[in-house]
Amino acid sequence: MITGKNYIGHQASASGTKVFKTFNPLLNVENDWKFTEASIQEVNEATSLASEAFKTYSKFPGPKKAEFLRAIAYEIDALGEELLDVYTSESGLPKGRAIGERGRTIGQLRAFANHVELGNWVDATIDTAEPERQPIPKVDLRKMNIPLGPVVVFGASNFPLAYSTAGGDTAAALAAGCPVIVKSHPMHAGTGELIASATVKAAKKTGMPNGVFSNLNSSGIEVGQLLVKHPNIKAVGFTGSIVGGRALYDLASQRAEPIPVFAEMGSVNPVILLPKALDNRATDIAKTYAGSITLGTGQFCTNPGLILGIKSEGLTNFANTLAKEIVNIQPTVMLHPNIIGAFEKNKTRALSQTGTQLLAGYKNEVKPNFAKQVVTTVEGDTFLNNSALHQEVFGPYSMVVQCENSSQLEDIISRLEGQLTGTIISDDNELISYSSLVNALQDRVGRIIFNGVPTGVEVCPAMVHGGPYPASTDSRFTAVGVDSIKRWVRPFSYQNWPNELLPDALKNENPIGIFRIVNGKLTKESI
Amino acid sequence: MITGKNYIGHQASASGTKVFKTFNPLLNVENDWKFTEASIQEVNEATSLASEAFKTYSKFPGPKKAEFLRAIAYEIDALGEELLDVYTSESGLPKGRAIGERGRTIGQLRAFANHVELGNWVDATIDTAEPERQPIPKVDLRKMNIPLGPVVVFGASNFPLAYSTAGGDTAAALAAGCPVIVKSHPMHAGTGELIASATVKAAKKTGMPNGVFSNLNSSGIEVGQLLVKHPNIKAVGFTGSIVGGRALYDLASQRAEPIPVFAEMGSVNPVILLPKALDNRATDIAKTYAGSITLGTGQFCTNPGLILGIKSEGLTNFANTLAKEIVNIQPTVMLHPNIIGAFEKNKTRALSQTGTQLLAGYKNEVKPNFAKQVVTTVEGDTFLNNSALHQEVFGPYSMVVQCENSSQLEDIISRLEGQLTGTIISDDNELISYSSLVNALQDRVGRIIFNGVPTGVEVCPAMVHGGPYPASTDSRFTAVGVDSIKRWVRPFSYQNWPNELLPDALKNENPIGIFRIVNGKLTKESI
Repeated sequence: MITGKNYIGHQASASGTKVFKTFNPLLNVENDWKFTEASIQEVNEATSLASEAFKTYSKFPGPKKAEFLRAIAYEIDALGEELLDVYTSESGLPKGRAIGERGRTIGQLRAFANHVELGNWVDATIDTAEPERQPIPKVDLRKMNIPLGPVVVFGASNFPLAYSTAGGDTAAALAAGCPVIVKSHPMHAGTGELIASATVKAAKKTGMPNGVFSNLNSSGIEVGQLLVKHPNIKAVGFTGSIVGGRALYDLASQRAEPIPVFAEMGSVNPVILLPKALDNRATDIAKTYAGSITLGTGQFCTNPGLILGIKSEGLTNFANTLAKEIVNIQPTVMLHPNIIGAFEKNKTRALSQTGTQLLAGYKNEVKPNFAKQVVTTVEGDTFLNNSALHQEVFGPYSMVVQCENSSQLEDIISRLEGQLTGTIISDDNELISYSSLVNALQDRVGRIIFNGVPTGVEVCPAMVHGGPYPASTDSRFTAVGVDSIKRWVRPFSYQNWPNELLPDALKNENPIGIFRIVNGKLTKESI
Repeated sequence: MITGKNYIGHQASASGTKVFKTFNPLLNVENDWKFTEASIQEVNEATSLASEAFKTYSKFPGPKKAEFLRAIAYEIDALGEELLDVYTSESGLPKGRAIGERGRTIGQLRAFANHVELGNWVDATIDTAEPERQPIPKVDLRKMNIPLGPVVVFGASNFPLAYSTAGGDTAAALAAGCPVIVKSHPMHAGTGELIASATVKAAKKTGMPNGVFSNLNSSGIEVGQLLVKHPNIKAVGFTGSIVGGRALYDLASQRAEPIPVFAEMGSVNPVILLPKALDNRATDIAKTYAGSITLGTGQFCTNPGLILGIKSEGLTNFANTLAKEIVNIQPTVMLHPNIIGAFEKNKTRALSQTGTQLLAGYKNEVKPNFAKQVVTTVEGDTFLNNSALHQEVFGPYSMVVQCENSSQLEDIISRLEGQLTGTIISDDNELISYSSLVNALQDRVGRIIFNGVPTGVEVCPAMVHGGPYPASTDSRFTAVGVDSIKRWVRPFSYQNWPNELLPDALKNENPIGIFRIVNGKLTKESI
């Protein structure tokens, strides 16, 4: 049952006075629940509890944190139909998507549970002493990763489960040993509250300290700003727009003690169509991309918003087929009136740029909040000279850039902003002749795809979901996969520390049986 | 032979008009050489060359980069006596220190050569495809670390070799595959030029691209600012003061495309004296610390500037012995008149704070630029309430804080700014009763030392040289040891990429024989 309250640690709380509601875009009405925004006092309580919880939680062994993470997964599952109903009511996304995303969320929590239970993630590194070394003795040094401290997580509008309350950022931070304060996304505050209730239930059941997790409601920016500026907070995770992510990054960088912000922000996910592939299968590619562009009403961060090819009969065929296919797809609803408002505005802005031509757009009447998909085209020269065309139009939109030749194509790629993904559609041995183009693309992206679509982000250790700015604020980390834990940890070194007082990961006996680098050699052996 | 020129890639160059000289603090005279500051045009040339060099250098296999790094080490060694002479003339540091630091520099270069030759540092992670998976097939994903791009390195005043031109930051960046532009430290521009000449010679001999390394002279801040703001630059390494490091961090954070800055900035390196240790061996500890405080004229970033104990007969004995010992040590010269100027100013400021008492200070006349060491003492309460006392006094200075009880001691520790190191002097089983104090200290530092001195930073994989702000701008990295390479790399993922076009590290056959995580299992096996 949704109460509209915040969770300040284990405690439901609503001491503030401002309330807001969420919106059902499919029915085009407000939902009934009233959410109370967190007060300044509640923000301060949550941060105090988080700092206090950090003292014990940061020292918990892997299996204890794993138990907590698995309990969260269990409690989310146990929310049953209510979660699915609230999710669909607050997002307009279909029930199948809700089930899929719930599975992904649970899967992520369990993957992190396994990861910290296994324990190798601490990157234990040991250099033993050499008391006889000349000219000076060598000391004993032992290094491992430890958690940074309380982390604030800002959930994504487009992933109410997998990248929100107990999504990837939260799971990674809790796995690392960092308490988490979620600034709940106002578009799906009810979904957030349910997940928060499951998380708090799991925390209580598994004996976690009060304050290991809090969930704060807010429809404005004040609560988020207070959190990011608060001295108790040691890192920030964010998924959302460039404007939002950059604002938080700036705020965090300007603190007396700057803290790291990992913000995963938009991307146009360029797709390069190589000539032979276009010659041989332009129609098939176009059909595939019509689907990818409109998947989930184009609301994935990996939506292909930019398609680049060299002028040819093949590219013309591709564009014509894409135009034909895209209008046959039944429009779907967007997450919120604000989201579709921005889509319409950005689409209009893109279409109003000199040289942009409409390839095709859905024309029939649609229900409120349903997005009419559009594909446009532009000459390579025009694109190069107008950076407004490089910006993301979040929603079912893509632009086909018709380049004069491969040198212009490469020039365009090398001038793109940072991207989450880049895709190359290529035939047989065609790719080998485009190595400098591939290198230029690699330089701009976090993940490169061969003959596929960028949509669909596999959650696995080898995934990189991130990339050069503005795809993310720090390309040295990924937001997806178990390695995303690295965002929330720092290396820590013990010098000549008594063996019995070292953490298990660094003890001579290697009691938890992890891989360690001992005097330069990777081994599970004891010392 | 010193020419006073910059190296713009492989080319010596001096197109600017501003010149400056370095200073011999021991003789208290300017050195003869005239250094020409890099012009704006030269800055732009260096960054263009670096970007161009990155295209090829970033793809070089480990052994080829290793050859370059070893050649730099060889050429530095081949500089022979001239390097030692210029080093001592520009720093006042003794020849023995010059030889030791040269050995460390060469050792670091060779350690990185071995590291990239071995190749495990790319953290290769492979998840193979599952075409039959339901409901959707699993794609093939392969991840490895790749270099960020051109890196700007700002060398340290106090380590003209090991943390300057071809020091730790440069060696790590070159090992990663990043071209380096050094903003040469104006206090030892001659030493810098010699090392740059050796590096360029090595680059030419081993066939490295022009622009893989540049060395720019400057006595002011303009050249550094131009470099950090330049769009071609993708990361910054800095060793120096908090003011300098923070200014660069702010500049980099405010760019249209923010870039990571790893700045290793000062630290007071707190030392905690536990009661039993003081009871049993206050005199010995004091003698050891008199040496550590004055080592290298107190010009190490790990100099113990703050000593904390609980009021007791033992602490009084310690303070008295320290006072007696410290004045018996022969003063030594500081690096530069500016450095000793700042030392005198900060010492006076610390002594002028209400409640600060002089324990002892060297009183006799000294030669110009020689530092008169000082130790002071203060009550715990006074220290807690005056943050001015928490600031570093760079040089042979330390303050003994006399705490009322262990709770005040812990309170002080928990309110310290971030530190490179924390040291605990303890007897036998004493430490086990102070676990919350140890935890508080861990929270504030990058390295914790048992019964030792913080000075002396072992270069080995298990070292952490960094720590919470302001010890460094990002506690998630270390500046010393092979893992410092992680500052300059990002993970990159290939999806469904043809095996023959993958980098060797990710090919099925594992041709370079590295450890990889394949479907969750760490292995050297092929796929």
